[in-house]
Amino acid sequence: MIKAGIIGATGYAGGELVRILLGHKNAEIKWFGSKNYTGKGYSSIYQNMFQIVEENCLDDNIKELAAQVDVIFTATPQGYLASVLTEDILNRVKVVDLSADYRIKDVSVYEKWYQLTHQSPQFIEEAVYGLCEINREKVKSARLVANPGCYTTCSILTAYPLVKEGLIDPDSLIIDAKSGTSGAGRGAKLPNLFCEVNENMKAYGVAGHRHTPEIEEQLSYAAGREIRVSFTPHLVPMNRGILVTEYAAMKENLTSEQVRAVYDKYYGNEKFIRVLKEDVCPETKWVEGSNYTDINFKIDGRTGRIVLMGALDNLVKGAAGQAVQNMNLLFGEKESEGLEFVPLFP
Amino acid sequence: MIKAGIIGATGYAGGELVRILLGHKNAEIKWFGSKNYTGKGYSSIYQNMFQIVEENCLDDNIKELAAQVDVIFTATPQGYLASVLTEDILNRVKVVDLSADYRIKDVSVYEKWYQLTHQSPQFIEEAVYGLCEINREKVKSARLVANPGCYTTCSILTAYPLVKEGLIDPDSLIIDAKSGTSGAGRGAKLPNLFCEVNENMKAYGVAGHRHTPEIEEQLSYAAGREIRVSFTPHLVPMNRGILVTEYAAMKENLTSEQVRAVYDKYYGNEKFIRVLKEDVCPETKWVEGSNYTDINFKIDGRTGRIVLMGALDNLVKGAAGQAVQNMNLLFGEKESEGLEFVPLFP
Amino acid sequence: MIKAGIIGATGYAGGELVRILLGHKNAEIKWFGSKNYTGKGYSSIYQNMFQIVEENCLDDNIKELAAQVDVIFTATPQGYLASVLTEDILNRVKVVDLSADYRIKDVSVYEKWYQLTHQSPQFIEEAVYGLCEINREKVKSARLVANPGCYTTCSILTAYPLVKEGLIDPDSLIIDAKSGTSGAGRGAKLPNLFCEVNENMKAYGVAGHRHTPEIEEQLSYAAGREIRVSFTPHLVPMNRGILVTEYAAMKENLTSEQVRAVYDKYYGNEKFIRVLKEDVCPETKWVEGSNYTDINFKIDGRTGRIVLMGALDNLVKGAAGQAVQNMNLLFGEKESEGLEFVPLFP
Amino acid sequence: MIKAGIIGATGYAGGELVRILLGHKNAEIKWFGSKNYTGKGYSSIYQNMFQIVEENCLDDNIKELAAQVDVIFTATPQGYLASVLTEDILNRVKVVDLSADYRIKDVSVYEKWYQLTHQSPQFIEEAVYGLCEINREKVKSARLVANPGCYTTCSILTAYPLVKEGLIDPDSLIIDAKSGTSGAGRGAKLPNLFCEVNENMKAYGVAGHRHTPEIEEQLSYAAGREIRVSFTPHLVPMNRGILVTEYAAMKENLTSEQVRAVYDKYYGNEKFIRVLKEDVCPETKWVEGSNYTDINFKIDGRTGRIVLMGALDNLVKGAAGQAVQNMNLLFGEKESEGLEFVPLFP
Repeated sequence: MIKAGIIGATGYAGGELVRILLGHKNAEIKWFGSKNYTGKGYSSIYQNMFQIVEENCLDDNIKELAAQVDVIFTATPQGYLASVLTEDILNRVKVVDLSADYRIKDVSVYEKWYQLTHQSPQFIEEAVYGLCEINREKVKSARLVANPGCYTTCSILTAYPLVKEGLIDPDSLIIDAKSGTSGAGRGAKLPNLFCEVNENMKAYGVAGHRHTPEIEEQLSYAAGREIRVSFTPHLVPMNRGILVTEYAAMKENLTSEQVRAVYDKYYGNEKFIRVLKEDVCPETKWVEGSNYTDINFKIDGRTGRIVLMGALDNLVKGAAGQAVQNMNLLFGEKESEGLEFVPLFP
Repeated sequence: MIKAGIIGATGYAGGELVRILLGHKNAEIKWFGSKNYTGKGYSSIYQNMFQIVEENCLDDNIKELAAQVDVIFTATPQGYLASVLTEDILNRVKVVDLSADYRIKDVSVYEKWYQLTHQSPQFIEEAVYGLCEINREKVKSARLVANPGCYTTCSILTAYPLVKEGLIDPDSLIIDAKSGTSGAGRGAKLPNLFCEVNENMKAYGVAGHRHTPEIEEQLSYAAGREIRVSFTPHLVPMNRGILVTEYAAMKENLTSEQVRAVYDKYYGNEKFIRVLKEDVCPETKWVEGSNYTDINFKIDGRTGRIVLMGALDNLVKGAAGQAVQNMNLLFGEKESEGLEFVPLFP
Repeated sequence: MIKAGIIGATGYAGGELVRILLGHKNAEIKWFGSKNYTGKGYSSIYQNMFQIVEENCLDDNIKELAAQVDVIFTATPQGYLASVLTEDILNRVKVVDLSADYRIKDVSVYEKWYQLTHQSPQFIEEAVYGLCEINREKVKSARLVANPGCYTTCSILTAYPLVKEGLIDPDSLIIDAKSGTSGAGRGAKLPNLFCEVNENMKAYGVAGHRHTPEIEEQLSYAAGREIRVSFTPHLVPMNRGILVTEYAAMKENLTSEQVRAVYDKYYGNEKFIRVLKEDVCPETKWVEGSNYTDINFKIDGRTGRIVLMGALDNLVKGAAGQAVQNMNLLFGEKESEGLEFVPLFP
Repeated sequence: MIKAGIIGATGYAGGELVRILLGHKNAEIKWFGSKNYTGKGYSSIYQNMFQIVEENCLDDNIKELAAQVDVIFTATPQGYLASVLTEDILNRVKVVDLSADYRIKDVSVYEKWYQLTHQSPQFIEEAVYGLCEINREKVKSARLVANPGCYTTCSILTAYPLVKEGLIDPDSLIIDAKSGTSGAGRGAKLPNLFCEVNENMKAYGVAGHRHTPEIEEQLSYAAGREIRVSFTPHLVPMNRGILVTEYAAMKENLTSEQVRAVYDKYYGNEKFIRVLKEDVCPETKWVEGSNYTDINFKIDGRTGRIVLMGALDNLVKGAAGQAVQNMNLLFGEKESEGLEFVPLFP
């Protein structure tokens, strides 16, 4: 039985980790960490857990936690893990970090986009970027997994095979992303009030969102050279779900069959990536509550562009689900253990 | 392995049956019946099932179906099952009917409220009303289970212990119920369009909704005499969830402890009924996607009334979840098998 | 031209006052008061007002304000106006208070339900309860108008004629009310976050909501004796709108015609109260953005009860619209001036 | 007083025309045309109009209608107007067509994208494309106005000044558009059911939506040569609102001041186009119920692209509001008459 501890268990991603781990056959949660709710019953914060979770919230003592568990999930604000992580901790437990602290290899890029001084850059090099379908083998032997962001998981998985195989001009890539509001977290902020979000839609962080360099770094590896993309996130009046619509110039005239073959090459055996049938556009509702990413594409011969579409549940494949998928890889579990949710519809 | 067939598998309740049965260890779906989509891939109708369900939809041939499976679920319009059910079918398979055809013992009441002539009243007597927590023992040996309605499950479970123990005047009972829109089904009707429901709320079927006699019959058994209640359903701009707010005159001054003790007596060991802590009001989101019913109450000394509140997911405990719970009882499975979903939040 | 000042102009009710007064032929806003945003451009707080309102927010100096305007609207938290109101202010300007400070005649009732010590009880007696359709004549000559609450306006208007004419037993009255989330205000609180409200429904303040004594006082006047009602508010995932469903025992068997005649007697000439045609249930969307209250009823012969339904826009007839209607009465304007919005659908 | 007739008065755009014209000082509706509801009370179809509109729906007899009114609005399916329009009608009345029949000058393009044979191509040449801010003078003397589509109005207005002034490479233009569900009309279709749209997001009509050639034609005029754009519409779970996010390569390095100066040159005096302050992103809620289009942009020096954003209410500026704006131009009314709605928030 894998003993797991969660720091930041009362945020939305933390709550989703709890939901998922409760259904995992070989894992049990030993530590529900929450700085804001220390000492309170976990289910008093998340009433959906009433009579399911009996434990109280504990503090953020990662050192003590490292002595008690096999794996620590940090679902915490940027900078937290970097400020407390030590060699000793990494020697004792596996760490899956849902924050951005170890996602970006170039610390100056991190510090510029996050406006933070990185407190433990010495661990960046060894951290494995936990996009399971791409870095599966590296994850297995890691001590520290940088769990990808929600937008980035969806953006990268949707474009990766075409970039890797050189079917599109990666510098032409434009990613227009739409997210449910849970991506903004459970903090009590005016822009996230129901009446501000409901019956409304907007872009935000235009030309400056922090997930941009993360997408660029990973797709640069695929392209074999440094690339830059346009990335624009939007807030949508729904709880869960990310949809990306990506535009790229085709390097040559492609047929639907060619593109499909490339997707199949990379994802044909991937349980959690579903390349949809022709002319079926991904919808966020079709993956809600599940670890799936749904992908499809449309060739636009008129403009010489291809339109790519991807959808996932930002709290599952975009956060907690992928974190558990990484845990499974780290501990030699079946990769889909605890993650075989059928999407909830409607 | 229990072989299951579903007639009406492409309605919302049918789709939810599929979702739930896919996670059941000892059941498999052998027949995805759909009159409207016969011959089409099931997952082309419900894309959330893509790469999960490979089967095509079959027709509604219940006779043929009865030869192939152990249990038939009918998630069909009122009158359908009554028009095709035979002694032969009941001798071959168990039938769990999600329609209202066998819920009401007095056929004249059924015919009056549903404006239908009952085609096989001879099976009404033996049908067991499948409200598991109340009729558990009777269900186990039934051939035909009348699965309760969504409003009725919530309404009855919320009031049952207090009526049964005589703490409230049952004739004073007023049930104000609020439902998500999936309760209206997947039919393409103008009043269920997004723009008609969103940012809107209304009552409907006032003083005439068909779930009224069903509630009355069951609570009459509890009261030991015939009672009448006021029941008003409302349409809420959400997909899933039923919330009932019930008002009743207390027979004498009650304390919170007395009422709680009565709820504990009936539900203390019930996995799927959670009587919440004092002053916590049930919320539909806290049970979404799960088989739980959350209940609480508030004594209003000023008016001599007690206010009862109950919440459930209309497609799970209010339909498909309870149907599977009944199947488990019918086949000697663990009652919660396939139903241990942690509610999805947010 | 009536010069108007608003204290609390950046709350939702305050914003609605601005929207409405901008369309009023004979009124102009001279003071956009906002404690939190003093000095900031009003339209930077409410971008819908961009290029429409050029003014900055001012502070809450009611004394100075009273020297500059003809009418002051206070859309402020409970207790504010009571703490600053003086005889001098009332001698200079009319005051329309959207808070509860002067709604309840018995100061001990106010202090008990609001858990506040009233700072200026000497003005309670003269304050006129500004439910225009009931107290029209009194409002005309008032100095201080206590603008009714959103729930109360809807609850009272729906039941008033039947209570007044003795058709129902007022002590049997049960009011089940449902409100959009703007009623909770623009404060950044966790329970009002999009993800907490969306796809969710709950009751709150059960048997203890502060609008209860306000409803009771007004309906007691109508009944000619002190009555008590059950009142339960619910939070609905929509921005605007209140729907009330009210249940009462009929004193005798009533016909639909009798009840309709009574409604006609009181509301037949009321522009802003629409008694709908038989069997049409009020929907909040049909009054959105307008000053209408839609009402209807259904007699339930089976239970001897009548079900009443009312719908209004909580920010218009439930707050700012009624406040402007009161202003019109105070200044001899046409009562509907600035309020002739056609409801926005969908 | 301008006498107006509406054919298609019971669709969402038709209903919005009614709402707007009811507030117009110099117009009155003489004909509420509705093929599906002929003979029924208009307010029985749109209960928001109860006691506001007393008329019944009439049929679609455009010939008879032309004899009775000064202007006909056709809010009808594609192909209808083309099939009934005659020289005689155009000699008698002005026609503002909200369908696509006369928007595209090249009839072969129309026939290809709409899969229809145009029944009266002889009127295409004279029809004026009624994008008021661009074609104001031509509209004034037209007989037949082709009222632009909702997506197109937003897409074109957002990009027009930059294309016209040659600041961007028009062939690089990518338009990612998001629309509320009222754009899909009031037809009872499964994909528009509440449960299918709520808590969901998807693209549709990818690389093939009919508004594409309309956008291309108008921007080609601005560019002075034929251009092609990528256009992708998305369905958002809200009633009203269109948001477009547009991406284009800058021809040279631009400063924010340069771009703003160009927007000011074209829109500085336009009442209904608001170019927002720096770093304020348009939100659909800020224009809801109004005739405004909100626009802003962000220069992305990293990629050499500029991101443009535009928002409008699809039923107002995107349909009925612009139609009335055109009517005002046709009849010499103040252009904003009847259209000075302050956006409704929240």
